[in-house]
Amino acid sequence: MSVLIVGSTALDSIKTPRAENPRLLGGSASHAAVAASFFSPVKLVGVVGNDFPDRYLRLYKRHGIDLDGLQVLPGKTFHWSGEYEANMNNRRTLLTELGVFETFTPTLPKTHQSAPFVLLANIAPSLQHHVLDQVKRPKFVAADTMDLWLNIALPDLLKLLKRLDAFVLNDSEAHQLTKEDNVFAALRKIHKLGPKYVVIKKGSHGSILSGPRGFFICPAYPLHKVVDPTGAGDAFVGGLMGYLAAAKGGIDDHIRRAMIYGSVVASFCCEGFGLTRITTIKRGQIEQRVKELERLTRF
Amino acid sequence: MSVLIVGSTALDSIKTPRAENPRLLGGSASHAAVAASFFSPVKLVGVVGNDFPDRYLRLYKRHGIDLDGLQVLPGKTFHWSGEYEANMNNRRTLLTELGVFETFTPTLPKTHQSAPFVLLANIAPSLQHHVLDQVKRPKFVAADTMDLWLNIALPDLLKLLKRLDAFVLNDSEAHQLTKEDNVFAALRKIHKLGPKYVVIKKGSHGSILSGPRGFFICPAYPLHKVVDPTGAGDAFVGGLMGYLAAAKGGIDDHIRRAMIYGSVVASFCCEGFGLTRITTIKRGQIEQRVKELERLTRF
Repeated sequence: MSVLIVGSTALDSIKTPRAENPRLLGGSASHAAVAASFFSPVKLVGVVGNDFPDRYLRLYKRHGIDLDGLQVLPGKTFHWSGEYEANMNNRRTLLTELGVFETFTPTLPKTHQSAPFVLLANIAPSLQHHVLDQVKRPKFVAADTMDLWLNIALPDLLKLLKRLDAFVLNDSEAHQLTKEDNVFAALRKIHKLGPKYVVIKKGSHGSILSGPRGFFICPAYPLHKVVDPTGAGDAFVGGLMGYLAAAKGGIDDHIRRAMIYGSVVASFCCEGFGLTRITTIKRGQIEQRVKELERLTRF
Repeated sequence: MSVLIVGSTALDSIKTPRAENPRLLGGSASHAAVAASFFSPVKLVGVVGNDFPDRYLRLYKRHGIDLDGLQVLPGKTFHWSGEYEANMNNRRTLLTELGVFETFTPTLPKTHQSAPFVLLANIAPSLQHHVLDQVKRPKFVAADTMDLWLNIALPDLLKLLKRLDAFVLNDSEAHQLTKEDNVFAALRKIHKLGPKYVVIKKGSHGSILSGPRGFFICPAYPLHKVVDPTGAGDAFVGGLMGYLAAAKGGIDDHIRRAMIYGSVVASFCCEGFGLTRITTIKRGQIEQRVKELERLTRF
């Protein structure tokens, strides 16, 4: 089945202690869409300016991503610039130019309104609502978020939580939302806000699922070197949703493996700037790392 | 087989945002010995003053811990006092009174010199050397450490690493020792310093083993509430060594499960102040959590 993905579509200028890469293809929807495309057909919903490089449109297409929902408007593409510290965890934003994103109001093509799987990747909760309003009886809806929305759009986000099957956030956001230091205590509180499934991302420490069948402790794939972690969280949730959409049967029967696949896809994302590494891999390489994770966690 | 454990034997006064507990039984050797005692006979090597409460000697004995190597000297028992922040991770030391520990020179009883498994729990590396000098051809030697020794006794510690089978340290210490932010890159560097097995503890994020059969990603048991994490790392390595000493066959066949058992014993440690919770549990409760960890990580 196909996955509808809405989120940011951006140009990222990324600086690390080792290198600097301007105007890479980025944004939560780009990372999630490419990640999901290894498993399922993807319909992308987003907006770019008329400065958006053709080669990035071709990149989406090479991954079979349906671009009927991608608006190209006069003006500049959303541009984000950030710098990482040596530990590759702490980063600071150097610049945010919203461009055409400022007035983005996604209107779904008819073909998109019946998408069975919907991923509301990181974007303003009001836009997540707006997209969800246009989808008819989806089978499974997941959303990601970021600290910014907890700060400036909490009421919208809390309303959104009641409309989701799954909510994905990172550990510091879970703390910010619930005031709980303990991640399992935080999970309990987040369920009370609505979602049946809650996933907490912990970067290199892996992730935790809480759902009807209890917790699942999901490892991160061991990387000796992280080149650029930008978009890894988006790739994780994209891979998760792509895998789920492709799986036959109930969500509970597949969501653990879906997280493993998300984790593996995210590991490839970290191995290159922007999407440069992940767009070179084949499904077989994903399967290999999944098998490795089986070996790495067996006891 | 039996495990010889040397380390600190102390009185701990622990303050958390919720409670304050003075003069609990503590020290790395106490935590490790009680943890190991669930699996194997333990010989404790340490020193206490003549102010050491009889009830703590009885506690050791209830766990079948051999006290022939525990010196009782005129003077005060090592007293440590610390305070935890609300997140239960950051702590600061309020007071350290070395007492009889200041001049501690362990001399092993004859019965201890042939111990097959030796755990050099956290204590000055010079004392770890001194104990190891007295043991004849041990089967397996592991050591733990702390940031203090990296700061003030690094040459001793580096010499010790060449004498170990396994070295256990936490992630911040691994970073301090190797200057590597990436834990897998750090592991590689630590192997080059000597030990065949390296274990990096990551608190609530679990631990990682690196050995001849590659990495093992070991989960922490999910706790909704941490009462007092003091000694959890010592309990982890104690449980690990106790389990290994009890297992028949090669180290590689058992070390993964040994880490899981260490992880579970450490989880009980966190559920009460000092040793109060862990001293109430039965082996069956440990087995139950091991089974739970199997369920929590299966995919």
